[in-house]
Amino acid sequence: MATKKVGILGATGTVGQRFILLLADHPVFTIHALGASSRSAGKAYKDAVRWKQARPIPENVKDITVKSCDAELFKDCDVVFSGLDADVAGDIEMAMLKQDIAVFSNAKNYRRDPVVPLIVPTVNPDHFDLIPHQRSLHNLKKGFLVTNANCSTTGLVVPLKALQDAFGPISHIIVNTQQAISGAGYPGVPSLDILDNVVPHIGGEEEKMEWEVGKILGGVADDKKSFSLLENTVVSATCTRVPVLDGHLETVSVKFANGSPSLEQVNQVLEKYSSEAEKLQCHSAPEKPIVVTYDADRPQPRLDRENLKGQAVTVGRVRKCPVLDIKFVLLIHNTLLGAAGSSVLNAEIAVAKGLI
Amino acid sequence: MATKKVGILGATGTVGQRFILLLADHPVFTIHALGASSRSAGKAYKDAVRWKQARPIPENVKDITVKSCDAELFKDCDVVFSGLDADVAGDIEMAMLKQDIAVFSNAKNYRRDPVVPLIVPTVNPDHFDLIPHQRSLHNLKKGFLVTNANCSTTGLVVPLKALQDAFGPISHIIVNTQQAISGAGYPGVPSLDILDNVVPHIGGEEEKMEWEVGKILGGVADDKKSFSLLENTVVSATCTRVPVLDGHLETVSVKFANGSPSLEQVNQVLEKYSSEAEKLQCHSAPEKPIVVTYDADRPQPRLDRENLKGQAVTVGRVRKCPVLDIKFVLLIHNTLLGAAGSSVLNAEIAVAKGLI
Amino acid sequence: MATKKVGILGATGTVGQRFILLLADHPVFTIHALGASSRSAGKAYKDAVRWKQARPIPENVKDITVKSCDAELFKDCDVVFSGLDADVAGDIEMAMLKQDIAVFSNAKNYRRDPVVPLIVPTVNPDHFDLIPHQRSLHNLKKGFLVTNANCSTTGLVVPLKALQDAFGPISHIIVNTQQAISGAGYPGVPSLDILDNVVPHIGGEEEKMEWEVGKILGGVADDKKSFSLLENTVVSATCTRVPVLDGHLETVSVKFANGSPSLEQVNQVLEKYSSEAEKLQCHSAPEKPIVVTYDADRPQPRLDRENLKGQAVTVGRVRKCPVLDIKFVLLIHNTLLGAAGSSVLNAEIAVAKGLI
Amino acid sequence: MATKKVGILGATGTVGQRFILLLADHPVFTIHALGASSRSAGKAYKDAVRWKQARPIPENVKDITVKSCDAELFKDCDVVFSGLDADVAGDIEMAMLKQDIAVFSNAKNYRRDPVVPLIVPTVNPDHFDLIPHQRSLHNLKKGFLVTNANCSTTGLVVPLKALQDAFGPISHIIVNTQQAISGAGYPGVPSLDILDNVVPHIGGEEEKMEWEVGKILGGVADDKKSFSLLENTVVSATCTRVPVLDGHLETVSVKFANGSPSLEQVNQVLEKYSSEAEKLQCHSAPEKPIVVTYDADRPQPRLDRENLKGQAVTVGRVRKCPVLDIKFVLLIHNTLLGAAGSSVLNAEIAVAKGLI
Repeated sequence: MATKKVGILGATGTVGQRFILLLADHPVFTIHALGASSRSAGKAYKDAVRWKQARPIPENVKDITVKSCDAELFKDCDVVFSGLDADVAGDIEMAMLKQDIAVFSNAKNYRRDPVVPLIVPTVNPDHFDLIPHQRSLHNLKKGFLVTNANCSTTGLVVPLKALQDAFGPISHIIVNTQQAISGAGYPGVPSLDILDNVVPHIGGEEEKMEWEVGKILGGVADDKKSFSLLENTVVSATCTRVPVLDGHLETVSVKFANGSPSLEQVNQVLEKYSSEAEKLQCHSAPEKPIVVTYDADRPQPRLDRENLKGQAVTVGRVRKCPVLDIKFVLLIHNTLLGAAGSSVLNAEIAVAKGLI
Repeated sequence: MATKKVGILGATGTVGQRFILLLADHPVFTIHALGASSRSAGKAYKDAVRWKQARPIPENVKDITVKSCDAELFKDCDVVFSGLDADVAGDIEMAMLKQDIAVFSNAKNYRRDPVVPLIVPTVNPDHFDLIPHQRSLHNLKKGFLVTNANCSTTGLVVPLKALQDAFGPISHIIVNTQQAISGAGYPGVPSLDILDNVVPHIGGEEEKMEWEVGKILGGVADDKKSFSLLENTVVSATCTRVPVLDGHLETVSVKFANGSPSLEQVNQVLEKYSSEAEKLQCHSAPEKPIVVTYDADRPQPRLDRENLKGQAVTVGRVRKCPVLDIKFVLLIHNTLLGAAGSSVLNAEIAVAKGLI
Repeated sequence: MATKKVGILGATGTVGQRFILLLADHPVFTIHALGASSRSAGKAYKDAVRWKQARPIPENVKDITVKSCDAELFKDCDVVFSGLDADVAGDIEMAMLKQDIAVFSNAKNYRRDPVVPLIVPTVNPDHFDLIPHQRSLHNLKKGFLVTNANCSTTGLVVPLKALQDAFGPISHIIVNTQQAISGAGYPGVPSLDILDNVVPHIGGEEEKMEWEVGKILGGVADDKKSFSLLENTVVSATCTRVPVLDGHLETVSVKFANGSPSLEQVNQVLEKYSSEAEKLQCHSAPEKPIVVTYDADRPQPRLDRENLKGQAVTVGRVRKCPVLDIKFVLLIHNTLLGAAGSSVLNAEIAVAKGLI
Repeated sequence: MATKKVGILGATGTVGQRFILLLADHPVFTIHALGASSRSAGKAYKDAVRWKQARPIPENVKDITVKSCDAELFKDCDVVFSGLDADVAGDIEMAMLKQDIAVFSNAKNYRRDPVVPLIVPTVNPDHFDLIPHQRSLHNLKKGFLVTNANCSTTGLVVPLKALQDAFGPISHIIVNTQQAISGAGYPGVPSLDILDNVVPHIGGEEEKMEWEVGKILGGVADDKKSFSLLENTVVSATCTRVPVLDGHLETVSVKFANGSPSLEQVNQVLEKYSSEAEKLQCHSAPEKPIVVTYDADRPQPRLDRENLKGQAVTVGRVRKCPVLDIKFVLLIHNTLLGAAGSSVLNAEIAVAKGLI
């Protein structure tokens, strides 16, 4: 099979750098074009980027000339991955879509759009079912637009989906996050703000978490023209920033509408959960979507963020919550499954489903 | 007034070092004896201690000869402050009590004892009312035993007390802590465990928080011979360790038995809360027990832990909780109000009440 | 004595915030005007600043209206302290000087000017002798311009001055610095660059250290119209950034032109060193300019940076250098003696000398 | 070729864990036995170890039963790798040697032994030439004992060897290290000592560096019965601990006995340096022993420690030293090439040379 040509927007940013690493040697996708701000356009990638990854820039990417994010310049791409900031993502991603390109966005701009799927690959790939309707609205043949969830939302919905599938609706969720600095991009969080410190606020993050869960865990309407948002699930989020490089930790309490399962049942369900991504044998799908740990002091960001190449969510400390029903701790790699890794796996799923 | 002679047990530990700094130049108490393990006994304090404070060892303490924690050696002390670890605190503190000494303990050993007050100085100094009964049981004239709360519990109960006084019983509390490394003593947390990391478990901490709240916020029985534990308040705690030197951050959601107050009411009540400690004009009492901050990203450990000399709790981000009623963020200096500072202020209150 | 009216330029920056704390309650100086960028001008200080200090904004400063750094607006100040960045400091400081104001600058712009003293207060306050000549050149009555040294240079020259006074010229110096993030201002060093990392480069810092030592440790010509730079002292500096909030650590090896003193002689000379600043009984002068430590693992930034209110340099680990003569480790608080603290003490010296 | 059976001593420690990762899937060596303290003996490895690596315990190692380090129990091993602490390494390693086993030690105990090679694999594998003499002294057929260098020494001697080969003897070396916490093992450095701090002392480290360079860079006597230590090379080391997980940074100044090469010559020589390890096509040999970087702010621990799988030394900032001749910055992964990685590569070289 011929590989698909892909473009990366925001290629010099922290999410963009992760896209480079994930796609430089990919069996299905070939990096064809890199887009960044006009300041970077015209430069070789290695000269335009402030590379902050522990692995070096892939050799086959170093000398690609960066382009501005003009849709015209990406029209021979089959797929575009966007790591653009929200302030510019809206217009650029829409222009790419209108070029009939398959667009996978990490920005928040279209997440609440009623015809744009908000997909966590190991949770709700069935939301791709809305693509034919989206195409017809935009009068497109091949192109479409799909977004990732927020990184913290992504970590949360994976175990919630497993629990909801097994035990029915979850009525109440209280979640507290301890988020890594890489989530804020570069230069991002000033070191004077975070060394020997915790910052108990991340602008807009709590609102995103409280809203996105309802779309992702909701279903697709029978006519496949709209999403059914969960109506009876309430989420309360508190988001904090901690001095950790990668890996968001979340402590979660949940209440089930139909009564609480036992701890054994919960652990068993989390262990056995599987998603369409593995069944489709996608290249970036983790062996399983959830790694369950039984050690008393796990998961931990430094020790668990790379579990299953950063594409799984690690869940531990499942125990009774005296106020709601069940509480647990989860960890997600915020720039892999929480960002670039979701986009790439979503695109692999779209290929497997024949959408690309 | 003649000052009171005090002994410090566990004087070389991290809590002991804080006692030294708080008491070296105190208007009511004079350091008279220092106790530590037999390994340190017989040495000058400056040679026995691994001093880890940013301020140097007070000159008048450097050359005090450290004793073993033999109660006989402390019998001419009016007061003993104990920063001993739980594995030895039980026997030693009881022996000191039997010497008719007023003992203020930071250990967990006697917190659940039905005749030992568990006192947070700006919350429940009325629990000193049980002292006459405790003395009569032990056949003492001057001595008694009072304990501090756990550091995280201490931070939590200060605003809860203000809210309970104003709005009636709190039925449900979900709290997540992000605790400083100094809470684990020295050597305590290995750096390999906490650099670029969060450890989502602190042995026994969640159980302490879930239980202690009910004793502290409960009342004293009319006959002043027992405590009435709260029966209709449920606490769910998750405790984590973060790479912060001092200052525990807690994110809290609460539900009121009698309906939710408004955010304005909550802020106002927190601002206006005052305790007996200030009214008694105790030396270490903060100007007010709670500092309310309205900045979106506060409180923060590094910037707020020293507020009012570390004896106040800072509360911010008061907002509606979609699941319970109200949520907020608080910060407590874990080795000041959360440990040694509570003991010293408790002792000052006891002096003001004529118990010492 | 009437206090002197002072202005602070760059008042919202990290050095400016230190000036605020040092001057808010000063016996000789009264804060009269605050200058910052045009973006801040017109706002109350508390609204213009992103305050990053562990102590709160002083009450008497909170509501001062910030001005732009227009010299006309500062003409009723006796003294102006400048924490401006080098890119704007040159013009603004010169304009202030021309208003006949005494200007104390932290910027590098005029450090190499042949008629501008580069003064470390506990090292070379005799360089104030050039002020009459400077005034005559600029046709001023009261005004003059004096600069601080670079923060790392400042730490280095204090013990070097003590050694040079006692043992004659130092011919060779190799210094390696490990500098705190606060030295880069705010937002300054991105956390992604420094967490779990060291950055072995600080732009221009090595050149500053290698040059400034020669001016500071050189003398004033007999006619008091020029400085005699050291000609036979060679400095080799390597500067690195480490994840420390405050406090630059420097490891130093030196060779003496006239042969090496013994370790005992070196320690004795460092212990006994005193400067004019203490003799003039200046308010901000440390009890002594150098704290000598004999502990094998000191000085350390977190434990020693506050020594003598951050106005002393702490020196330890004095030992033989197998390559040069003597090696040692020093620590300086980079935003106190290394920046704002030097300026304030310089100004106090100038008052004591009758120059203000 | 049949693989060699290997034992790992100190298998539960931090160096031991690195050995496990390096050897679990090795083409030449097969893990046959794991040794640890008597406290761990009899347990499955996964139960005995506090695993602190970002990658999980290899499946084929998890259930190996740990033994005590009794030489008798390892006698069917061809090779033993020792990550034992110095306080027990001496006796145990000698007992293993007497069982006629090839022993590769990370401890300091035998480094100064006149018949034990101290080998950095990409520097002085020719020191294996002394093995026949060592065997004859101990009356062994197959066994021998070889030690690694100290981790900081290892980083230093790689570029020094390249320079010495090209430009002749180096007469003077001043080196300052900033060492990662993993170098101290587990629990190792308490977090209270290193967060927001630097500790300018590591017990015995400076002495090791100052001595070991002379043995490693010296030669083997013509009769292959002794080592010729460098006599005219003087090393001055200052060692500090910084809050970095892995990767020692060293800033180095050197003086050449025969005059200074140009910066271009130095860079070229470093770039072109190659060692016998690559020529022998050893599995763990890096592509080249030195990675030269020309970025102004590199090498950095977090970004460069994994270069060439942690088996290369990264060198940057080559520039003139005003005091000696040349200065530069280097980085070594302290638990890979600086410890376990050296041992494994040394053993591969020994196999290639027919010694095992």
